[in-house]
Amino acid sequence: MKISVLGNGRWGSFLAWYSSKIGHEVLIWGRGNSRNFHDLIKTRKNQYLTLQPEIKFTTSLNEAISHSDIVIISINSQYLRSLLKKVSKTNFYDKIFTLNMKGLEIDTGKRLTQIAKEELGVNLKVAAWVGPGHVQDFINGVPNCMVVSSDSPAITDFVISAFSSKLIRFYSNPDLIGTEIGAALKNVFGIAAGMLDGLNLTSLKGPLIARGPFEASRLIKYLGGNELSAYGLAHLGDYEATIFSKHSHNRTFGESFVTNKQFDYLAEGLSTLQSLNNMYIPEIELPIIESLNDIIIHKVDPLNTLNDLFMRPLKNEFY
Amino acid sequence: MKISVLGNGRWGSFLAWYSSKIGHEVLIWGRGNSRNFHDLIKTRKNQYLTLQPEIKFTTSLNEAISHSDIVIISINSQYLRSLLKKVSKTNFYDKIFTLNMKGLEIDTGKRLTQIAKEELGVNLKVAAWVGPGHVQDFINGVPNCMVVSSDSPAITDFVISAFSSKLIRFYSNPDLIGTEIGAALKNVFGIAAGMLDGLNLTSLKGPLIARGPFEASRLIKYLGGNELSAYGLAHLGDYEATIFSKHSHNRTFGESFVTNKQFDYLAEGLSTLQSLNNMYIPEIELPIIESLNDIIIHKVDPLNTLNDLFMRPLKNEFY
Repeated sequence: MKISVLGNGRWGSFLAWYSSKIGHEVLIWGRGNSRNFHDLIKTRKNQYLTLQPEIKFTTSLNEAISHSDIVIISINSQYLRSLLKKVSKTNFYDKIFTLNMKGLEIDTGKRLTQIAKEELGVNLKVAAWVGPGHVQDFINGVPNCMVVSSDSPAITDFVISAFSSKLIRFYSNPDLIGTEIGAALKNVFGIAAGMLDGLNLTSLKGPLIARGPFEASRLIKYLGGNELSAYGLAHLGDYEATIFSKHSHNRTFGESFVTNKQFDYLAEGLSTLQSLNNMYIPEIELPIIESLNDIIIHKVDPLNTLNDLFMRPLKNEFY
Repeated sequence: MKISVLGNGRWGSFLAWYSSKIGHEVLIWGRGNSRNFHDLIKTRKNQYLTLQPEIKFTTSLNEAISHSDIVIISINSQYLRSLLKKVSKTNFYDKIFTLNMKGLEIDTGKRLTQIAKEELGVNLKVAAWVGPGHVQDFINGVPNCMVVSSDSPAITDFVISAFSSKLIRFYSNPDLIGTEIGAALKNVFGIAAGMLDGLNLTSLKGPLIARGPFEASRLIKYLGGNELSAYGLAHLGDYEATIFSKHSHNRTFGESFVTNKQFDYLAEGLSTLQSLNNMYIPEIELPIIESLNDIIIHKVDPLNTLNDLFMRPLKNEFY
């Protein structure tokens, strides 16, 4: 099949490598003014991987879209809408899109497939493809599971058949809301995990991984999804890669934040946190998210806040 | 209050130290023929901690029981029944017992509080006290949450009031079955986590932590408990300390098993696995437990078995 990958960061370059590895014809699109993209074209490698010789590059969105059967998008969530406005001027009809990204739009709190349908039409064939696995591990042949969700079983099945291999085993979850919200929140809780690491409170990740899915399930249910999704691969199943991994940008951001170190990578959880802050959600308790807001936005002391959060006087575990 | 601690291993010695630290009068009981216990009496320390000068020792169960308001028991689960047979000959009436242990009896599959009531009477005041936290962290002042369950809110509340501090925040869970089964199964899944580490499949801990609580909740429900308990501190909330920690004996046992290294500590998950093997549970699927049985008891290849387990062809995540 013909696959175009829009984006050439850690995940974008991996998805191109992976698509080529399993036999697809791959074209990577990047911005003409991106230094990283030009370096990738020149060297065909980055710190994670070396791209196969068959993979082609383009800076033309028209070329990328018309080349493809499936368009994989993996960029900073906050740039999705502006990219799709450009895609809307191409001949994108009948293409299938997968969004391999996690986040919510800061100003609106909208999910990424919602943004895609707003920009490219309500009948757009679009799926969210998220879940555990480190690029570093996949490249070394370590397999993992991932999850695909969409509004249509046919689209989900099509994406899963196109990308299944011994390296990635796919599961479907018909609850698109739960998958997207769960994936976005996982990054937020990854920041909390990093703060606990930075404050030498690593063992409080125990309570964090018990309470995180509860909190995610409340928000998913409130937004119309299935609360079970918080306990699946999109959220809890991705904690290994986020809460416990040195590779996680969100975890590392949290650790850097409380230890006053500089951190230059994208921590998607930060924009998701801002997005949640802009949403009006008065009816449900989101104590982890509120504590992170207090720490990051209102600059309250992280040690006291996180200690109070996990050691707060609740009597019964589940109420 | 007067506290006796039966057991002087990693957790027993910690619970004595902790009880003394928060102001209780502590007596530790150990077997007269235990070399570790004699070393502890002589040096007042072990690899984890140094006991306060106020803590006393005895090898007399009569003295230990008559000294106490609360008796903390923290020993190898498989020796609980024989110890309690000796306790039954003391003046144990009106004492409150806490079982700070995780496991099931190998031959019968019985929970530890069940064993206690069989040996000391159905009206025994006994609570299970389990949950996350490393001895090593607590000693260094890192706080955590733990959970107490019993058949009686009054007993649970009494134990929680007696032991609450800034270092340990307690939650109650009225579901004693869920707490005990969840705690025991956590050790079993810790063995699976160690095997994944040993096989360089660490990122499959992602699917493990999503599927482990599902599997635990099925067994808890089948045995009459509340399936939610699998998602609380006794099980999922203790994964940090077990699935991800270098300190965990169960995780280290699993890693040693697949890398053919010797491991000399007690891995409680191993006897729990034998116990589950002896129980007749035909109605529910327990794929992680079955895979561990295949690997440890039937000596099938761990790499293929675990790979098949986590990469097996299930279509939808939750069914």
